[in-house]
Amino acid sequence: MQKFALICLRCGKYEPFAIKGRCACGGTMLVDYDLELISRTIGKEMLPARVSSMWRYKELLPVTSQDSIVSLGEGWTPLIRMPALERDLELDCIWLKREEQNPTGSFKARGFSTAISVLKEHGFLKPAVPSNGNAASALAAYAAYANMHALVIVPSDCPGVITNECLRYGAAVFRVKGYIHDAANIIEEGKAEQGWLHVGTLREPGRVEGKKTMGLELAEQLLWELPDVIVYPTGGGSGIIGLWKAFRELKQLKWVSGNLPRFISVQEAGCQPIVDSLHQPADEAAPQPEVTSSPTGLRVPNPPDQSLIVSIIKETGGSAVSVSRDQIAQAQTKLGLCGISASPEGAATLAGLQQACERGLIHRRESVVLINTSHADKYIDYAATEHLPVIDSYQELKTILAQSL
Amino acid sequence: MQKFALICLRCGKYEPFAIKGRCACGGTMLVDYDLELISRTIGKEMLPARVSSMWRYKELLPVTSQDSIVSLGEGWTPLIRMPALERDLELDCIWLKREEQNPTGSFKARGFSTAISVLKEHGFLKPAVPSNGNAASALAAYAAYANMHALVIVPSDCPGVITNECLRYGAAVFRVKGYIHDAANIIEEGKAEQGWLHVGTLREPGRVEGKKTMGLELAEQLLWELPDVIVYPTGGGSGIIGLWKAFRELKQLKWVSGNLPRFISVQEAGCQPIVDSLHQPADEAAPQPEVTSSPTGLRVPNPPDQSLIVSIIKETGGSAVSVSRDQIAQAQTKLGLCGISASPEGAATLAGLQQACERGLIHRRESVVLINTSHADKYIDYAATEHLPVIDSYQELKTILAQSL
Ligand SMILES: Cc1ncc(COP(=O)(O)O)c(C=O)c1O
Ligand SMILES: Cc1ncc(COP(=O)(O)O)c(C=O)c1O
Repeated sequence: MQKFALICLRCGKYEPFAIKGRCACGGTMLVDYDLELISRTIGKEMLPARVSSMWRYKELLPVTSQDSIVSLGEGWTPLIRMPALERDLELDCIWLKREEQNPTGSFKARGFSTAISVLKEHGFLKPAVPSNGNAASALAAYAAYANMHALVIVPSDCPGVITNECLRYGAAVFRVKGYIHDAANIIEEGKAEQGWLHVGTLREPGRVEGKKTMGLELAEQLLWELPDVIVYPTGGGSGIIGLWKAFRELKQLKWVSGNLPRFISVQEAGCQPIVDSLHQPADEAAPQPEVTSSPTGLRVPNPPDQSLIVSIIKETGGSAVSVSRDQIAQAQTKLGLCGISASPEGAATLAGLQQACERGLIHRRESVVLINTSHADKYIDYAATEHLPVIDSYQELKTILAQSL
Repeated sequence: MQKFALICLRCGKYEPFAIKGRCACGGTMLVDYDLELISRTIGKEMLPARVSSMWRYKELLPVTSQDSIVSLGEGWTPLIRMPALERDLELDCIWLKREEQNPTGSFKARGFSTAISVLKEHGFLKPAVPSNGNAASALAAYAAYANMHALVIVPSDCPGVITNECLRYGAAVFRVKGYIHDAANIIEEGKAEQGWLHVGTLREPGRVEGKKTMGLELAEQLLWELPDVIVYPTGGGSGIIGLWKAFRELKQLKWVSGNLPRFISVQEAGCQPIVDSLHQPADEAAPQPEVTSSPTGLRVPNPPDQSLIVSIIKETGGSAVSVSRDQIAQAQTKLGLCGISASPEGAATLAGLQQACERGLIHRRESVVLINTSHADKYIDYAATEHLPVIDSYQELKTILAQSL
């Protein structure tokens, strides 16, 4: 008997587990576990003896056979205190979760360890992903390790270190004129013809589950006391969705109690759909604001399930803030001078925390977690992959693929 | 009572613990623990409940007070199987230790977590290091976190990503015409006047102890069965010295038994002092061969205690091989296509293993560990720090320091 299934967050429909992310009704489908059963099989006191990767929570991941697990050593990343920031911001307790210490240097490793394991278990071999970069390189690495052929499409201004990394891991790499959703459209258009499995945000159930392990780890590392606030750099939003799902499952398992942490979602000014729609209800008819933010993981003009993210933020009593490119750069410099290699996204959490403090959103005695999602070095100015083809449509991509045969 | 002291490996002299690396007789001094006492305080079955960093072995590290520990989340790095390489090389079991997942992206984090903790405990504030790069950036990060002022000197052709990293962590960074020993000479000359504490290889006792934790972890991760062979990319040699020390202490603690793993030391052709002196006794009078190898951590023409490294290799029945720049590049490509980000040094271990297999040095049934000491991304061609001063002498450095006041 399958220990997990899919459930639609919108219409509540329950389905057997499958590699899909959307319900017929259009809602997001997430994995639903038999938590009763799990709580009878495993107790939290059993965890310390387990593997020091996110697979220590294997009962809470949608893989049945141990042999399906594709692991490069992801998760169970350090959580360290930041005394210099505490002094600076006059807060009692700031933690930094070092997600840059994952394989491929970002938290995206978690999602793809799970997604590729699920694909392996179900016999799929051709994953394709639209990405701002880190998802692309993570997919490329896990696909390589699992002997699959990855195709990745990134915006044409994706950082060169990251596209270079994708090539190193053997992926087919294309750049697109436009944004991550333009890349997604191309994959959608070609997937039937090319046999691709689209593993973009909320297209399949594995990635959210993998990101969920950040939340499981936070709870375990903080000795099953949830923090008060989590500051999260938000792009497509599956990180926040995953964290939220983690805490809910932990509550159902009775491994934690009390309130969920408040989520403070941080975006860069110039592409801040979450901030905007939290503060004013989405007006579908309104013209989309022009995108002017930097080419990082935060630049996602059309998150696949924006209303879910907004409802999670509201449910937890959190908020969403936008920070400028300069504020991000200053926060990156400050983290550097604390000994931390932070990507712009990771640094944005510090800039966001500063703003939240100024706006009185955080009390001195509360504990705060910043999620440092990637390494600074992945974003240095490096142009080695400028030669990679820039495409505009699936037709163009198809022509190039045909030529390269 | 101090639970550890220093012992000279050459003359056997026993001294109270101090921040020194050499005995009056010229021999290397290492930390000596009261292992009897330790084995009565802690058993290996207590480890799983401990912190997931190298500080889980705190009794085996030369720090007395918990408050002295400067930790950024180093160590307890993943150890993963490499099935594709096993098929390729027809070996039953190849492990890869993912040292690139440390803070600052290299195994050097371990040594500086310990060294800076020791400095903190003893009240020193101005560490200085000669380095091929990764030691510099690790020192810079740990010093930053501990509010110390780091000075680093690297060869003028040190990879730009790494010098950039040192700047990010707030170190004073200088480049030197020449090699790592030229940088060391400058620090030696200026240290009294400038109040620097020289934390170069084997100059103080902390770094070897930190690297030792790689060996402790290997044993624990392999369930206290030591591997048969460890392939290690060798520069200054403190990695091999640390691993060897780990296994000896574990044997004294009776946490492991049997033979020590054979060390296969790998160097790049064009700077292979260990390979050379293993095969022919050092002739002090012979002219030093010209250095033509790449600017990586392997390029150490004069290791501080070459005879110790050679004797360790001999004691374990190991060997030393040199590989070409091309072989390293090919191995790096191959590891990339397995999903692994390997620096040239890390990739050299695969090139070295290939050669060892060809030479019949390894039996099919033996278990082999490759140590992937750093990330590929740290070595990309990046020139942003070309403006940093290149010095030739301590006088020049002194002038620049004076001007910048
Ligand atoms: C480094 C980094 N941080 C944050 C994000 C945004 O994460 P999410 O999609 O979970 O909102 C991304 C996504 O690309 C990223 O690469
Ligand atoms: C990435 C890397 N690998 C290997 C080495 C050599 O290590 P050891 O000095 O322990 O011989 C270094 C030293 O700089 C390094 O940076």
